[in-house]
Amino acid sequence: MALQIEKIKKSKISDVDFNNLKFGQVFTDHMFECDYENGAWQTPKIRPYQALAFDPSAKVFHYGQAVFEGMKAYKDENNDVWLFRPDQNQERINKSAERLDMPAFPKEYFFEGLTELLKLDKEWVQKGEGNALYIRPFVIATENCVSASASTNYKFMIICSPVQAYYAGEVRVQIADKYSRSANGGVGYAKAAGNYAASFYPAKLAAEQGYQQVLWTDASNHEYLEEAGTMNVFFRVNDTLLTAPTSERILDGVTRKSIIQFAEDKGIKVEVRPIKVTEIVEAAKNGELLEMFGAGTAAVISPILGFAHKDEKFELPKVENSYASFIKKSLTDIQRNLAEDKFGWRFKVQ
Amino acid sequence: MALQIEKIKKSKISDVDFNNLKFGQVFTDHMFECDYENGAWQTPKIRPYQALAFDPSAKVFHYGQAVFEGMKAYKDENNDVWLFRPDQNQERINKSAERLDMPAFPKEYFFEGLTELLKLDKEWVQKGEGNALYIRPFVIATENCVSASASTNYKFMIICSPVQAYYAGEVRVQIADKYSRSANGGVGYAKAAGNYAASFYPAKLAAEQGYQQVLWTDASNHEYLEEAGTMNVFFRVNDTLLTAPTSERILDGVTRKSIIQFAEDKGIKVEVRPIKVTEIVEAAKNGELLEMFGAGTAAVISPILGFAHKDEKFELPKVENSYASFIKKSLTDIQRNLAEDKFGWRFKVQ
Ligand SMILES: Cc1ncc(COP(=O)(O)O)c(C=O)c1O
Ligand SMILES: Cc1ncc(COP(=O)(O)O)c(C=O)c1O
Repeated sequence: MALQIEKIKKSKISDVDFNNLKFGQVFTDHMFECDYENGAWQTPKIRPYQALAFDPSAKVFHYGQAVFEGMKAYKDENNDVWLFRPDQNQERINKSAERLDMPAFPKEYFFEGLTELLKLDKEWVQKGEGNALYIRPFVIATENCVSASASTNYKFMIICSPVQAYYAGEVRVQIADKYSRSANGGVGYAKAAGNYAASFYPAKLAAEQGYQQVLWTDASNHEYLEEAGTMNVFFRVNDTLLTAPTSERILDGVTRKSIIQFAEDKGIKVEVRPIKVTEIVEAAKNGELLEMFGAGTAAVISPILGFAHKDEKFELPKVENSYASFIKKSLTDIQRNLAEDKFGWRFKVQ
Repeated sequence: MALQIEKIKKSKISDVDFNNLKFGQVFTDHMFECDYENGAWQTPKIRPYQALAFDPSAKVFHYGQAVFEGMKAYKDENNDVWLFRPDQNQERINKSAERLDMPAFPKEYFFEGLTELLKLDKEWVQKGEGNALYIRPFVIATENCVSASASTNYKFMIICSPVQAYYAGEVRVQIADKYSRSANGGVGYAKAAGNYAASFYPAKLAAEQGYQQVLWTDASNHEYLEEAGTMNVFFRVNDTLLTAPTSERILDGVTRKSIIQFAEDKGIKVEVRPIKVTEIVEAAKNGELLEMFGAGTAAVISPILGFAHKDEKFELPKVENSYASFIKKSLTDIQRNLAEDKFGWRFKVQ
């Protein structure tokens, strides 16, 4: 692979106020780009970050044929830059792509592009608690044709955005009882662009009632708890952690699987099994539901303070020895090279 | 509304071979465009058709927040240009938009933009059977931000592509038994971009087995017949036409509703009700299933010659007095101003 690199003339980093970043709005100096044409991925390139020309008939605008990933890079006190389990994202973007009939992106291209891009834009990864570089690999359909069939052409890109600690404010969730996120036989397990657009309207309705997220349930009967907008979800009932099994409807989150492995290693009992709404409502009523939290790359762990189901509202107790706090601190310490990496999850950018 | 018009210097129409058009690949001289910014639709514009610059972080690339429509314009022997029930498309794009938490596009803007664009590009609408101008209104999320929430900015566009008679070859369909298109509480009734990408992979698997389309069933049990990729579906059992009711999972097709009204007016018995897979399989086995056809703007009516369900394959009989042929001829005659417009469906572009 011959990666072509065109560097910026002058970095725009001095224009950026790293203490006042809005999530995902500022991008680094460079971007990685590779086109799929005539049945093959062409020469990958790193270029100055810039707008690109698209024909109005490009298929991504019409048929939502697009998949993406989300990862973070962290800088330690030695100025080394670390990724967290990037192999998982590399595999997952290709699983997502397959479900949307898009070509797989070669692993070597992914890693060489990612590594070279991060080396070039290393200054954009800030040290310190909460600071990170959010990395967005994505693939879009670029054939110029308004007929509803898979594209012949694609563009794979990686863009990067510096972020601070992700704090979504107090999070309470509404358990879905009417709208749904994905169906059996659908694309819920893929990070397919259209899944997200489909969730915005129900999320808005929930927000109007004071809930920051929708907690999705199965589309057939709204009987089982699945996941939230961009997070898998965990429930602590007494001293057991519960989370739904991944399925064709649920994204196989990297944070989720890391939490399961970490918690089990620490001797916390974890049950991965279908979780009934009624069971969690019951546990909340009789005081056994001690914690709920979302798990995803953006926030790592986001505590959920309460939830609504139909007309009932529940607040969770304040617990000492919170699993959420303990696991979040432990995982972020691993991510930031502040703790031993027992599971081999860290990946050094070099 | 002050529509700004910038005309092309020189038409590219003489470069086009109207006898060898591939569907949706050639576009007319102009395009209509209107941006939503700061909570309002800005000045609408008609400009020469051209590629546009998009930031790689534009939300449409990441979250599939995009909806579209498909319509056709026809030219009669007097060189008048006609649309078919454009009010339906105008209403539907706003219904689709609402479900994806996108702003409605004003009706006056839609009609003025559409009309002026068609007047400017009138030469591109060719006379003669089968010839038409395919019209693609669409709306895409243009905010430059990789956080998974509804966009603040949008672009509404109309682009047009000359097409010949749409003939998809012989069509046989495979009844979905594993994959699904949409769920209760989902976005199936919307012309949401992501619905189409989700169907490409199952369609590819069907194609590998010799079926040109998937006939979707309900996601819960694959028990009821719903619709095909870009067509609603009708079944003729003896002398009755059956079609599934529209629902939150099924697109409310303009062709479908026109067929129902037309057929009832002609005294054909139409039943709009849930249709079981087993019922159609039974009817095929005992010779009562006389016809099946798809209904949509692109092909108007597309006869289905056979279908597969699990391991069983069925061929439909050749019938005299085909409903599909009769209805197709009648509808296209109305569309092309060759027959009386009893229902007030034609709309003259002027
Ligand atoms: C739908 C959905 N579920 C869960 C997650 C969490 O996955 P991960 O931990 O890999 O970030 C994400 C996003 O990242 C997501 O989009
Ligand atoms: C999913 C789907 N069903 C049905 C139809 C038919 O609708 P109409 O007759 O309005 O073209 C279309 C497309 O146009 C479609 O995309």
